[in-house]
Amino acid sequence: MVRFEVLILGNSSATPMYGRHPTSQILNFNEQLLLIDCGEGTQMQLFRYGIRSTRISHIFISHLHGDHYLGLVGLLSSQHLMGRQSDLHLYGPAPLKEILDLQFKHSDTRLRYNLIFHPTNPNERAVILDLPSLKVSTFPLQHRIACTGFRFEEGVRPATLNVEEVERQKVPTAFLKLLKRGVDCVDKKGIVYKAAELTLPGDKPRSYAFCSDTIMSDAYFEAIQDVNLLYHESTFLHDMVDRAKETFHTTSREAAEVAKAVNAKQLLLGHYSARYRDLQPLLDESRAVFPNTTLSEEGKWFAI
Amino acid sequence: MVRFEVLILGNSSATPMYGRHPTSQILNFNEQLLLIDCGEGTQMQLFRYGIRSTRISHIFISHLHGDHYLGLVGLLSSQHLMGRQSDLHLYGPAPLKEILDLQFKHSDTRLRYNLIFHPTNPNERAVILDLPSLKVSTFPLQHRIACTGFRFEEGVRPATLNVEEVERQKVPTAFLKLLKRGVDCVDKKGIVYKAAELTLPGDKPRSYAFCSDTIMSDAYFEAIQDVNLLYHESTFLHDMVDRAKETFHTTSREAAEVAKAVNAKQLLLGHYSARYRDLQPLLDESRAVFPNTTLSEEGKWFAI
Repeated sequence: MVRFEVLILGNSSATPMYGRHPTSQILNFNEQLLLIDCGEGTQMQLFRYGIRSTRISHIFISHLHGDHYLGLVGLLSSQHLMGRQSDLHLYGPAPLKEILDLQFKHSDTRLRYNLIFHPTNPNERAVILDLPSLKVSTFPLQHRIACTGFRFEEGVRPATLNVEEVERQKVPTAFLKLLKRGVDCVDKKGIVYKAAELTLPGDKPRSYAFCSDTIMSDAYFEAIQDVNLLYHESTFLHDMVDRAKETFHTTSREAAEVAKAVNAKQLLLGHYSARYRDLQPLLDESRAVFPNTTLSEEGKWFAI
Repeated sequence: MVRFEVLILGNSSATPMYGRHPTSQILNFNEQLLLIDCGEGTQMQLFRYGIRSTRISHIFISHLHGDHYLGLVGLLSSQHLMGRQSDLHLYGPAPLKEILDLQFKHSDTRLRYNLIFHPTNPNERAVILDLPSLKVSTFPLQHRIACTGFRFEEGVRPATLNVEEVERQKVPTAFLKLLKRGVDCVDKKGIVYKAAELTLPGDKPRSYAFCSDTIMSDAYFEAIQDVNLLYHESTFLHDMVDRAKETFHTTSREAAEVAKAVNAKQLLLGHYSARYRDLQPLLDESRAVFPNTTLSEEGKWFAI
């Protein structure tokens, strides 16, 4: 099965404390590395966890609060200094380009590789990357400033052989590959081997959704329906729900309610407020509503 | 004696590796905290070493290469979120203001405290802060883009009592404070006690110079003459002197030659290239020319 995992580089909200870092994640899809958000310190975190930043092909920035993008100029500059040559695709709010250009201008930096910027639309759902193996889409979140979530969805997974039927019909080995691709085969004696009989449909494509930062709102529920793994911000405990609403954030209990409402298989919490040194209460609160909750931990890979 | 020490928060050049961080230092002058440069990750380093960032009163930025200022927006925003109310003075190249304003605009940040920006002049020496106890001046360095060094100089140190003479003349205790301030005193019997006879001049004011980034050039020697502690970048070993010149940096041997030429008491090396995991060769090379050299180490305080 193709690798599809996420590595947490930062799980802190805006004020990083206790050794926690601002938001950043590496998605490994079949050894292709995608970066989701790029808080301050991302390049140091990549080094710490043994990820070569030049392997990253796509970067996705949710919004322009500093804790979600301030590591970007450093990361892009370092890749330039390390001799990166391959293209790098960057997706984010339109003004991000102006911010990068201004900083590159004053540092007299001319990147040696192509940085291809794709502005995201904060108002509507959109497919922003559509490969046969992977589709990435954005959807509006409800934050204090324009903010998008991201959904990463595997392409259709190949059919598998119906081993019992293959044995019963004594299918010649040479035909197996074609049958898996859905092609019917005929041997020299004229016997027909039908793909529909000899294969089983592939597993359901897996998907990952990233929701940070936002208040809980059913406006984005459809966009993240049925995901295998849902990363949802849970900045506060529910006793601070008023503060959460005021600052356009979510509580742990609400994150769990989202996971339940959209039929997610698993929930990953993150974007913890600096007021919580101990995170166990956030986990307990979420599990009471949605048992399959996990705390995102920096340096840890989570399978999708 | 008044405290005058520097804490190294980052000693790496542009590509941070091996757990090293980009340039940043805290200067503690009599419990007043000044920040010199603010590379990416500075706020996390401050937390790690137990420094409350709201205690910082002045920030000095040498130039607009990312490894010297990319931690600034995060640090300023976090202080806002932590409820800072006291004024904060920021000194740096003029375009820094435009860069900060653009980022605050798009993150919809309105700082709750006064951030007072003082543009530096990269072309001429200038006193930028002149308090009775501390004077800070800038001087042009020779880098690829406009860059200034900083010199921090203690005010005149108070005279001390000439204890032997005080005992010989049997000076009334009530007069000692005035004598130290240079005031002659007369007792009821008409005996005169002369400050010039009874005191010794105060110790020479201490000074610290920060030189990063630059090629070695005698253009800035006068500005850092006779400093007690000289922090000088030493990005490369001297076998890479051509590369150093090409990138407007200094080798360890050259940093030592600077220290010797300006009659510094002690030299602190830093801004190490990512090619050196082991820093001992940089130290050895410098000590061969200037024995009182130390490697800057993150998390370590150095007395001035």
